[in-house]
Amino acid sequence: MVHQRWAKRKGSDAERELVDMFWSVAGWTAHRIAGSGSSKYPSPDVIAGSVQRKIVIEAKKTKDKTKYFSKEEIESLRLFSKIFGAEPYIAIKFQKENWLFLSIEDLEETNKSFKATLERLKQIGLLFEEMIK
Amino acid sequence: MVHQRWAKRKGSDAERELVDMFWSVAGWTAHRIAGSGSSKYPSPDVIAGSVQRKIVIEAKKTKDKTKYFSKEEIESLRLFSKIFGAEPYIAIKFQKENWLFLSIEDLEETNKSFKATLERLKQIGLLFEEMIK
Repeated sequence: MVHQRWAKRKGSDAERELVDMFWSVAGWTAHRIAGSGSSKYPSPDVIAGSVQRKIVIEAKKTKDKTKYFSKEEIESLRLFSKIFGAEPYIAIKFQKENWLFLSIEDLEETNKSFKATLERLKQIGLLFEEMIK
Repeated sequence: MVHQRWAKRKGSDAERELVDMFWSVAGWTAHRIAGSGSSKYPSPDVIAGSVQRKIVIEAKKTKDKTKYFSKEEIESLRLFSKIFGAEPYIAIKFQKENWLFLSIEDLEETNKSFKATLERLKQIGLLFEEMIK
């Protein structure tokens, strides 16, 4: 329980960090969604946008070299992005690395989940500055 | 303090009601924003959208015949809508009436606030079904 709360706070800290970057570096709006973990509707972690572009994001910080996303999480992001008209991305902050962004279409699918490795993200992921261009 | 908490919950109940209407009646996405009352960034109460349209909303329920919005609230909504590229609306549920929507451009400005009266909303406001057309 303590661990769950800690994990939850770590998650929202990551989301807040992204929200700050979008407002201060990109000059876009960005916000977290209320009750995103418990909502009965598809709920991205962060939504960011300008007049030209809308981005919906699942965001994670990790100490590992590989990060897994559940199929449900990614399908929910895909569905939201399709109805709302937005580009679906995952954003990962690996330890000692910059935030890296990847379109969900470029995630590797495994039996039970989608995965993103640091190695692959370094090859085909986008830095924040590249993503907002 | 108790009153503030009650007012806060009444506010989020109104927002949840709108979120449900957008998903179930319009088939649009809709969500509440995390920490919208306390965020350092402009934060609408509800954001709803389809591929074609994006709407940002300040939502209120009231037992009175007139509802006031602070200038700060409306300016913040205007700013968010401009950066994000969305239509700014207020939505009010007067007692025994349906939800009524009004573009913020059509609010009456007073010395210290913006106001929306039931009478005016019944004349120029939009019903939910009209707003999503």
